Amino acid sequence: VAWPNKSSLYILRTDGKSCTRELVTGKGKLAFAYPSTQQHLLVWRNQPKSVMVIKKLGDELLEEFVKVVEFLAVERGMKVIVEPVTYDHCLNAHAWLRDHVYTWDAEDDGRLAEHVDFVICLGGDGVILHANYLFQSSIPPVIAFNLGSLGFMTNHDYQSFREDLDSVIFGSQELESCSFMEDFGLVAPDRTGDRDSDNLGVMVTLRMRLKCEVYRNGCDIPHLTYDVLNELVIDRGPNAFLTKIECYERGRFITRVQADGIMLSTPTGSTAYSVSAGGSMVHPNVPAILLTPICAHSLSFRPILLPDYAELELRIPEDARCPAWVCFDGRSRQELGLGDSVRIKMSDTPMPTINKADLTGDWFESLDRCFRWSDRAEQRPLT
Amino acid sequence: VAWPNKSSLYILRTDGKSCTRELVTGKGKLAFAYPSTQQHLLVWRNQPKSVMVIKKLGDELLEEFVKVVEFLAVERGMKVIVEPVTYDHCLNAHAWLRDHVYTWDAEDDGRLAEHVDFVICLGGDGVILHANYLFQSSIPPVIAFNLGSLGFMTNHDYQSFREDLDSVIFGSQELESCSFMEDFGLVAPDRTGDRDSDNLGVMVTLRMRLKCEVYRNGCDIPHLTYDVLNELVIDRGPNAFLTKIECYERGRFITRVQADGIMLSTPTGSTAYSVSAGGSMVHPNVPAILLTPICAHSLSFRPILLPDYAELELRIPEDARCPAWVCFDGRSRQELGLGDSVRIKMSDTPMPTINKADLTGDWFESLDRCFRWSDRAEQRPLT
Amino acid sequence: VAWPNKSSLYILRTDGKSCTRELVTGKGKLAFAYPSTQQHLLVWRNQPKSVMVIKKLGDELLEEFVKVVEFLAVERGMKVIVEPVTYDHCLNAHAWLRDHVYTWDAEDDGRLAEHVDFVICLGGDGVILHANYLFQSSIPPVIAFNLGSLGFMTNHDYQSFREDLDSVIFGSQELESCSFMEDFGLVAPDRTGDRDSDNLGVMVTLRMRLKCEVYRNGCDIPHLTYDVLNELVIDRGPNAFLTKIECYERGRFITRVQADGIMLSTPTGSTAYSVSAGGSMVHPNVPAILLTPICAHSLSFRPILLPDYAELELRIPEDARCPAWVCFDGRSRQELGLGDSVRIKMSDTPMPTINKADLTGDWFESLDRCFRWSDRAEQRPLT
Amino acid sequence: VAWPNKSSLYILRTDGKSCTRELVTGKGKLAFAYPSTQQHLLVWRNQPKSVMVIKKLGDELLEEFVKVVEFLAVERGMKVIVEPVTYDHCLNAHAWLRDHVYTWDAEDDGRLAEHVDFVICLGGDGVILHANYLFQSSIPPVIAFNLGSLGFMTNHDYQSFREDLDSVIFGSQELESCSFMEDFGLVAPDRTGDRDSDNLGVMVTLRMRLKCEVYRNGCDIPHLTYDVLNELVIDRGPNAFLTKIECYERGRFITRVQADGIMLSTPTGSTAYSVSAGGSMVHPNVPAILLTPICAHSLSFRPILLPDYAELELRIPEDARCPAWVCFDGRSRQELGLGDSVRIKMSDTPMPTINKADLTGDWFESLDRCFRWSDRAEQRPLT
Repeated sequence: VAWPNKSSLYILRTDGKSCTRELVTGKGKLAFAYPSTQQHLLVWRNQPKSVMVIKKLGDELLEEFVKVVEFLAVERGMKVIVEPVTYDHCLNAHAWLRDHVYTWDAEDDGRLAEHVDFVICLGGDGVILHANYLFQSSIPPVIAFNLGSLGFMTNHDYQSFREDLDSVIFGSQELESCSFMEDFGLVAPDRTGDRDSDNLGVMVTLRMRLKCEVYRNGCDIPHLTYDVLNELVIDRGPNAFLTKIECYERGRFITRVQADGIMLSTPTGSTAYSVSAGGSMVHPNVPAILLTPICAHSLSFRPILLPDYAELELRIPEDARCPAWVCFDGRSRQELGLGDSVRIKMSDTPMPTINKADLTGDWFESLDRCFRWSDRAEQRPLT
Repeated sequence: VAWPNKSSLYILRTDGKSCTRELVTGKGKLAFAYPSTQQHLLVWRNQPKSVMVIKKLGDELLEEFVKVVEFLAVERGMKVIVEPVTYDHCLNAHAWLRDHVYTWDAEDDGRLAEHVDFVICLGGDGVILHANYLFQSSIPPVIAFNLGSLGFMTNHDYQSFREDLDSVIFGSQELESCSFMEDFGLVAPDRTGDRDSDNLGVMVTLRMRLKCEVYRNGCDIPHLTYDVLNELVIDRGPNAFLTKIECYERGRFITRVQADGIMLSTPTGSTAYSVSAGGSMVHPNVPAILLTPICAHSLSFRPILLPDYAELELRIPEDARCPAWVCFDGRSRQELGLGDSVRIKMSDTPMPTINKADLTGDWFESLDRCFRWSDRAEQRPLT
Repeated sequence: VAWPNKSSLYILRTDGKSCTRELVTGKGKLAFAYPSTQQHLLVWRNQPKSVMVIKKLGDELLEEFVKVVEFLAVERGMKVIVEPVTYDHCLNAHAWLRDHVYTWDAEDDGRLAEHVDFVICLGGDGVILHANYLFQSSIPPVIAFNLGSLGFMTNHDYQSFREDLDSVIFGSQELESCSFMEDFGLVAPDRTGDRDSDNLGVMVTLRMRLKCEVYRNGCDIPHLTYDVLNELVIDRGPNAFLTKIECYERGRFITRVQADGIMLSTPTGSTAYSVSAGGSMVHPNVPAILLTPICAHSLSFRPILLPDYAELELRIPEDARCPAWVCFDGRSRQELGLGDSVRIKMSDTPMPTINKADLTGDWFESLDRCFRWSDRAEQRPLT
Repeated sequence: VAWPNKSSLYILRTDGKSCTRELVTGKGKLAFAYPSTQQHLLVWRNQPKSVMVIKKLGDELLEEFVKVVEFLAVERGMKVIVEPVTYDHCLNAHAWLRDHVYTWDAEDDGRLAEHVDFVICLGGDGVILHANYLFQSSIPPVIAFNLGSLGFMTNHDYQSFREDLDSVIFGSQELESCSFMEDFGLVAPDRTGDRDSDNLGVMVTLRMRLKCEVYRNGCDIPHLTYDVLNELVIDRGPNAFLTKIECYERGRFITRVQADGIMLSTPTGSTAYSVSAGGSMVHPNVPAILLTPICAHSLSFRPILLPDYAELELRIPEDARCPAWVCFDGRSRQELGLGDSVRIKMSDTPMPTINKADLTGDWFESLDRCFRWSDRAEQRPLT
């Protein structure tokens, strides 16, 4: 397959006080310049040409998938890349797609980020976690469509996929109404201008990921590296009790954790497993790492939030009674033996997700949709 | 009283990626340049010459107070400023202090920040909240000594006050051991050099404050402004029920709160009232605003954290059944009538507090001291 | 007004092991024989002849009220008693009701329980709390209809009020299907038999009430007595801080409470204010008293449940910094001065409420209706 | 070994209203007559003659163990029974014990309750759970001594073991001071009177146990039966997700649980694992079964308490995605396959534990000791 060149893009950053503009060229990584609370705008320098479409496994969304592919390939003239399993699956059913759809060989697994302009997810939050898994070293912007199941990050309706995808490709008309843009006098960057000049781009959320490295006892080279989008969990697995986990920050001993488990979560993950364990819900623009105990034995061991510069290590003591288990975004579950440890810090490469309106609106809308957050406030008949 | 000139100082900022150095001159405000997760170092350009000493009201800490004043005035030759009530109180008991201690007139209440190099608090966290109240527009660095009662921010022991105050005045020897300084290759700024050149300064925490403005119904000018260090609370006061509070962010309706009350807290306040209401404990370097409901009627209305750029408004609807009450850091409690509102955003001027070791160490040490946070983990005999 | 004689009734009690039958004659009180977990069946000896109908204040339910009254008075030939305010209100609108509806003078306030066979509540849980207030010394069986607003105890639909009221008056056909009746071989008591012999009666829940006595400092006679159905609350009212409340059980000091407030709740009240403060949801047949702190300052002060034989006293110390406030089922809010105390124990007289199906079914159905308790379990897309 | 006859005993029951006396003869089971909130008094008809002493495994408590055995065997002339492993262990070290200490063969495992008058536990709560395991069908009174580690049920100090054991054997002098005994005019039962007549007996807590039966798919005979003292847990074990567990009460579908796990706990277990998962602390005299979810995915799925007559079934659906794991008091962990279920109801046979003072005092003392429950209330410096 002949890959197209990846388009360059701008990220405009503002923290409410200042505003910086950053050019990300084709092979560059989209990375945090400052860990701070910022809203971000994505602006393409050239129109994007290649797009990956990821769908939930199985037959159920095949029809919707084909419509999206057809729109992108035929109407918008883009190269559409799909996963090998989806490639086989959909060519069987729709042979005419052969001219429009591409896939890749296993040897190119690590180079996808160099070639894909943006990613479309069809399904629930699980599909986004899968996208995160595919793009471990660096990940292009992601737009997620809600198809049936509830999802915290799937903030786009399938019904309007044409309009929403055009917003990503050409920029969105609605930018003028984003209050923070007006507040800070933002103007459009230089563009080749094949569309209306007031289409600046689209709002994105730069979602923090946590870089997790598993070190086996006595070995300096990480046995495994995983950038999680939601959370890393260490728990007791099939054991009746969790051994006491030692917790360090930059080499300083912090505490010995006695609990069913311990979780380090991103703000994105705060509304997933962490909230079930009693954590607060954290807006994805807050640059923090959540340390949430799971059924802590001490009543005073409450969830805590650390700055994004924290560098943590969770270690199974060499004299522990039993091993523990580690899990990354609910995947790749494996045992941690005595003396093993996991080091966790903020990843250089966040996942940019396309917003529907702007960031604050999307987040509160997700709270309502997934937790009926403010809904009940209206109705509960307390006495 | 003839005020000395205020000393200039540097703030070195690092966020783990970059490092900026900022000069704050005599009448300048010490302000956030970027709302982000950063560690900060305070370096004086000239040696500080004036210091305010605030003590808990009453007789109990008088002896310790006099020792601190004597050290500063006689041994270090500084001008010592005290509150009017303390001035009267201590001159009665110790007339010889007359030549060393100063106070101020009510008309200078608003200008204290122009004249005080740093502030010493003797007592618990309540004394620090009082210092916050005295310096509403801008506040110099604060060092707090623990005297008897537990305090989350009183991280210095009275026993070593001479060494600790010298660390503030001359810089601390222990800087070399701060890992993040080494990591980023920080070097000392230009100094007039009357002390050892490796005394860079002291670590400070820039503690976010929330600027709260009360608007009475139909009036565009704030009736009251208060920069809180811990939290703003709106509750039902003596009413049996809280009216439904409307919550907006930058003019956008977010939710109608049905609860006993609602609190907007800083990370500093996260370990005060907010944790009692179920909030997470948030490191003071996390740039976030906590929205914590008090006994929410909806089981899904969990505490949330918003970015520090959030601009919130809490409004009593004009058709509400009854008024509400507002309270700032547990002070200035007053009624909010129908149509009144409170607007809350991050204040430009944080409170810098002197750390004992470095920020992370101080915070975990406070968790242990005040909540026996990791202590119980060792001992609890679950089954 | 000439009152009819009150009908006698049986209460069959079973605890899963034994079964006792208890005759309650006209002027008797319906009281707990054993505080234990039991299911109860109500069987009339003679057909009931007088009924009180209580409706929410205001005009909105007038039409439904009139239909219920007409059914009872005209079709079932009962004496219908209404509150004085409702009496005036409905006679204005429907003069023809004059021959069917009765009310009472203030001097008879305390004697209502001697004359009313059962009570019908139209509205939400607030109407049931009002019925509880009207019948402080002893209360006849209550049936509550849901009309618009959600209610935990309003488990009957207005649409089927004829069938449901006939179930109360004549006994219900559906008794055969109550599994626990079959399990224990229950048979019908002696009856005058004007209906089918297999209509044993209706299932009732005997809802615990808490007898609360307020003692003013230095006075042995209670200043106020109130039987609460939901909860007694002592809180800080308009004060910024709650004084430390001393808590005793049968004269033994238990703890000093430092919190925003403290609540003693019945199992019925466990799903009202207590659950907002973090309490568990307790089935009304569990004979327990819930002590739930409101925003406790100590992280380890969790909600606790005491046996129904507990006799508690909450006392404002004589050296307290400020007074506190007490509130009964959200009513009769008043100040508690220094040295005042409240004594709380289970009341002898529970409130019997008519079940729709049986007790367990009704309770889980209420959890679903009011909290969407099990509903979300099906849909939440965690990760 | 020639077993002595088991002594008969009385249980006096009071529920605050009535008082019943119940004779339990040698081979009888000590069982609940009524599930209700009652305080209980143990009175021997004849002096007890055989006692089992259980100690923590390993060498550490050997010295204390020998002193207790010597006191019982030599000074009080009792037959002392020990576990086989302890028997071998202590005879090696102390051969002279051979004449005083007995053990049993595996074939008598099920008949221990017929021969042991009471049980002494040396160690923490884990030893009491082990005693519970040894006496599954029926269990004699248990007295537990605190030796080093914290324990919620180990309310007797080793230092006073002689006095405390004499209180069990001969009755306690302190009974007169138990307020509830006086309140209800209790008098001593007929006794053969070899001690002072005012030594009525000792206060006991009848601790509810839950009878748990595991049913394998399609089989009507329980595969396993276990009476737990603390809790039954079903969790996801090594799986990343828990399948949805179906929950029934007496055959009625209640809810589908989506969580990390679900726990059914006794009041005794409420202060063990359940409190870590957010459950309330329940006095052991409250006749309730706690259903506590572990990290429920639905924010409204709070812990609930059901009456002790509840009969529950937790079932792995036949179309579940993966199996689950079950665990009894932290022991006997095993997989539950598709279609398997566990049925849980109150066991007929509670565990009687000897109180130190009376029940309420012991429980609040345990809250303080294990959770520093009321301690912090005095010291926390909130603002």
